[in-house]
Parts: sequence; structure tokens; C-alpha cells
Amino acid sequence: MKYKTLYFLDGKLRFLNQALLPKEVKYVECKTHYEVRDAINKLMIRGAPAIGVAGAYAIVLAMDNLVKPNGFDPKSWDEAIEEIRRVCDYICSVRPTGFNLQWACTQMFLHVKEVSGNYPYDMDTLKHQLLKKANQIAENDQKSCELIGKYGAEIIANGTNILTYCNAGSLATSGIGTALAPIYVAHADNKRVGVYCCETRPVMQGARLTMWELKESGLHPTLLCDNMVGKLMSDRKINMVLVGADRIAVNGDVANKIGTFTLAITAKYHNIPFHVAAPLSTFDFNCKTGNNITIEYRPYNEVTDDSGILVYNPAFDITPNELITSIITDRGIIKPGEIHGHPDT
Amino acid sequence: MKYKTLYFLDGKLRFLNQALLPKEVKYVECKTHYEVRDAINKLMIRGAPAIGVAGAYAIVLAMDNLVKPNGFDPKSWDEAIEEIRRVCDYICSVRPTGFNLQWACTQMFLHVKEVSGNYPYDMDTLKHQLLKKANQIAENDQKSCELIGKYGAEIIANGTNILTYCNAGSLATSGIGTALAPIYVAHADNKRVGVYCCETRPVMQGARLTMWELKESGLHPTLLCDNMVGKLMSDRKINMVLVGADRIAVNGDVANKIGTFTLAITAKYHNIPFHVAAPLSTFDFNCKTGNNITIEYRPYNEVTDDSGILVYNPAFDITPNELITSIITDRGIIKPGEIHGHPDT
Repeated sequence: MKYKTLYFLDGKLRFLNQALLPKEVKYVECKTHYEVRDAINKLMIRGAPAIGVAGAYAIVLAMDNLVKPNGFDPKSWDEAIEEIRRVCDYICSVRPTGFNLQWACTQMFLHVKEVSGNYPYDMDTLKHQLLKKANQIAENDQKSCELIGKYGAEIIANGTNILTYCNAGSLATSGIGTALAPIYVAHADNKRVGVYCCETRPVMQGARLTMWELKESGLHPTLLCDNMVGKLMSDRKINMVLVGADRIAVNGDVANKIGTFTLAITAKYHNIPFHVAAPLSTFDFNCKTGNNITIEYRPYNEVTDDSGILVYNPAFDITPNELITSIITDRGIIKPGEIHGHPDT
Repeated sequence: MKYKTLYFLDGKLRFLNQALLPKEVKYVECKTHYEVRDAINKLMIRGAPAIGVAGAYAIVLAMDNLVKPNGFDPKSWDEAIEEIRRVCDYICSVRPTGFNLQWACTQMFLHVKEVSGNYPYDMDTLKHQLLKKANQIAENDQKSCELIGKYGAEIIANGTNILTYCNAGSLATSGIGTALAPIYVAHADNKRVGVYCCETRPVMQGARLTMWELKESGLHPTLLCDNMVGKLMSDRKINMVLVGADRIAVNGDVANKIGTFTLAITAKYHNIPFHVAAPLSTFDFNCKTGNNITIEYRPYNEVTDDSGILVYNPAFDITPNELITSIITDRGIIKPGEIHGHPDT
């Protein structure tokens, strides 16, 4: 896709405002971590990996603001580390379900702790180290997307028709996406790939973002409403479901956009493979099962403008491991039962 | 509900324009069967039983128009019967999936055939007989709703939380509804009944019509998006699913609003009873299984205003009998496997 989802330039985080897509293609610039947090809250930046990258840069911006009037100006590594911890908590609280934000903020915190022993304290050194780490998180996210694309494309035969959900593409990452990455790679390999995409109520990430992104990338996706998947599957229109993830527990349970669970149940009923694509940064190795994942509830006005009615609006659900055929990661393809701890430890 | 969905008065069919609800509560009058067919096509009248009643009155209006310039003026019962057959075909073709329209038109046709032997031919006699039969169809529909309400309420215990779908209420019938009838009766019997209602994309009959109708009737329903049912059920928020039907095959397969099938699969996964409510006029005794039911596909612009994308928009799906706990009819509650032919023959 010709549009970059988010990047850091001249001390500012620039990103495509996803709340306006596809009607307006407009970039927004944030100079403070308050603005970044607000943009995440308003879904101007969304998608677990993209939120993670934005969170890392938000910490860079937070440290930049400290020297301004009324800001915080740490005098030592210890003070700086305490301040970073506070900022991490503040940023992470904006969206509790996705793990990448928490992961990226933790990476930033741990990096500063690590380097603090190597250099005498200095504000410029701190800022340099934070920016370096944030850039590394963004670059690794891009590489992870490419690897997911490579591994995932191996299970996409020529002529495969794939149902995807929400947006787990370029717009959800700083690279070519998670669930859409294998589709892009297969398409680039000249495989015929049909893509069906659910609207994804209430915020319509599928209808607004995935349809737009796939068209921009030269594909011809078909849109359907979320409630049409049963008929789509019984019509044998698709051979595979491929979705992203917001957090993956050690037992292989997957938190993802609300509706993923229903999709997985329906796929199981029809014996259609159900694949999840996610980088290692989405795996929460401290979370035993989906029961331990906090589900975010969003405001009623995402669903209706009628303030006089009761609305049930969870933003995510948990798909249990038994419904998942495989998880396509940046380290290869695994079964949900094959997660036994961080592969590097 | 204080608003009557449709009724015949002074030679005109009057009905609530359901395409405008809930923003505008506005009645429309039709003087010709062309207008009624168009109103059905545009979903201004919808719901299988209501469409059936409207179809019967459309035939009354069609015969009324025959004497006008360029109209048809039958000179004999044979000519009249042929003309009614033509009008029936024309009206029934507007929405092929729901059975009640076809059933009601057939009832009108058979009635004229039957009485044609009893009276000498006369235009006024013909019109009188048609109106008499249409009124009878409307009255019987009201009675059927009451009976469905009575039988259905028997399986609703105090404190039951029910998930319903689309609109199978007053607005879908000339009475108190099909799926909503047991809820109204249980509520009137002072049972505590919680109701959850899915939006029902793309036309939002749940969000627009069922939410409005239930509120008008003093209930406090909760709205959710169609993709939230998996989470709703795993949260154990509901004890029962209760939906209407557009056509029921002899083997108990049920055609209903798109999304019903996914709902039924998800209910089965969670061991939650899944009940269908429908009058005898929805049972197609010539249709062996759901495979024989024609599914209507609706225009792309119900789903999106972007004419440049591919859209999959079936208006109905088939729920196989194996997913259905029971069918609540105006003759009592049956299992889907217990349909063996018309009970009166």
C-alpha cells in the first residue's frame, strides 16, 4: 500500500487518521503522549501491533515534554525509570485488551533500565536511547509482518478463497499486516486469492479499512455483513478463515475483535480451517488462558445515537484454542497447544 | 403496541412505513396492487405474516382497478380466476423466500374458485368475496399471534433472558407478532423477561424496529451488534434464543432473516435452546427441505453506498432442523422432526 500507517519524523508521530477512512485520507501529527493516547482511544490509530508502535513513540514524546514548563525533568536514571513506569501505565490503560501496547511499553522501560548502567545520566542520552528502541520496535514489527506473510503464504494454495475480519492489514501494523500479510505475499506470487471481508460492526473496520486497503493494493475483495458468514460458509464460498489477534494466552486462546469467536464457531461447524496470524509481541506469556484477559467495553454511541436504550458493546471476545486450526507467527506456524513459554528464554 | 401495522379502510391499504421507523412514525396509503408490491419491495411493509396480509389486500385492490380505463373487466368467473392467478404471480414474485405471501395469495385464489360455483358471476360479488377472504386472513393472523403467544409463554420461566433477532413482532404481523408474542404474553403475566436484540444488518430491523416496538410496549430491551452473540452467550447473559421464520420446510429446516443460521450454530455450541415461532401459514408443505427454498439476494446499496465494490447480500439463510429446539406454532409447540403434512388434511 502506498500510504504508511504511522512513522516518527522531526520529533512528531505522524499517522493516517483511521477514524476518517475511507472518506478522507488524512495524516495527523502528535507532539505529546497525551495526544497519542487520545488518538488511540478514538480509534484514529488501531490494530494491536500499530498501537504498540504508537505506544513506544508516545514514551519518546513523553520524555520530550518533560523539560517543558511544568513538565518533568529527571535528574537521574532512577528518576527517569520511575517516570517512564508512570507514563507506561498511563498509556497502557487506554486499551486494556490488546497486548502489543503493554509489550512495547515494557520493552521501552526495560531498555532504559538496561542501558542505565552503561552511561552516566543525561537527558539527551535518555531520549536518544528511547528513540532508538522505539525505532527498533517499529522496524521489528515490519519484519514480523513480512515473516508472517512468508509463512502464511505457504498454506495458501492457488485459487484459495479467504474470509478475513476486522482489519489486520497494513493499517493495523507498521508493515504489511498480520492476517492480510499472507494474502499480499500469495498475491505477489501470482496466486489467485479471493478475499471476503466482514463489515465488523460497530466501527466497521472491515468495511471501511480492509476493503479500502485491499483495493489500494490491487485486490478485489467482496464485502459482507457479519451475520452472513453462516450462509457464506454453507455456500462453500470460502476455504479458509484468516484473522489477526489482540492478545494470545499461553493455552492458545485468542482475544480478537468482537465477532471473531462467532466466526470460529461457525467455521468449526462447517469444517473450514480457522487460522490466526500474529507476531510474537501479541503473545502474553504471563496469561494462562483467555479467562485472564480483560475485555474492553466501548461506549453505547459506537452502536447507536439513541442515548435512551441499553447497549451491550464489548470490543473483543475470546476464541478458545479448540476452534483454532493454527497460529501463523513470525517464527513459523504453530498449533494453539504448542505455546509453552517465550521461544527465546 | 398502540400502532396498528396494517389495515384496510375505505378501499385502501394503510400501513406504518417501516422503512422510516423509528425516526418517523408515518402511515402510507395504497390504492393499487402496484403500490403495495412496491411497498413490499422497498421494505415499507415487511415480516412474512404482514407481507401475506398485505398480499391478500393487494389482490382486492387489483380487482378494484380492473374496471378503470385500461384495466381488466372480467366477464365471467373463469376470466376472473385467470386474472387473479396472473396478479398472484406478479405479487408473489416481489419477495420469493417468505412463504406467507404465496400462501395468502393462494388462499385468495382458491376461495374465488370455490365460491364461483355458488353464485352467478358479478363484479361486485367477486370484490365482496375477495375482501371477505382478505379480512379473514388478517383476522386469523391476529388469532395465530395470540395462540403463539399463549403456547410460547408456557416455556418462558420467570427471570428468563431471551435473545431475539430481526423483527418478528407486531410490526411483522397484523397481531402481536410471532417470536415477540410469547414475550408480550409472559410480560403481561408479570414474569420478569429480559430481552436482548441483535441489530440485524444490513437493514437494521432489530435496531430500528424491534427496539422501538418493545420500548413502545413497556419493555427495556438491550441492543447488541450481530457479531456479539458469541460473547453474549459465553457470558451466560441469555437462556434462550427466540426468532421468527419466513418459510419452514417439511423436514423442519427454517428460512429466516440472514444471520439466524449463525445464531443457531452459536446457540448450539453453548447449549442454549433455540426456538422458532411461526403460524401454520409459514409452513410450506410442498417443500421437503431447506435446499428447496429460494433465497432472495438484495441490492448492494443496502450494505454500502460504494458502487465500486463487490457485495454479498443474501437476505435470508437456512437454519437446519438439527439446530432447532422447538417450533412454537398456533397449534402448539412441536419439534422440527414432527412436521408430517398439513394437520388439517
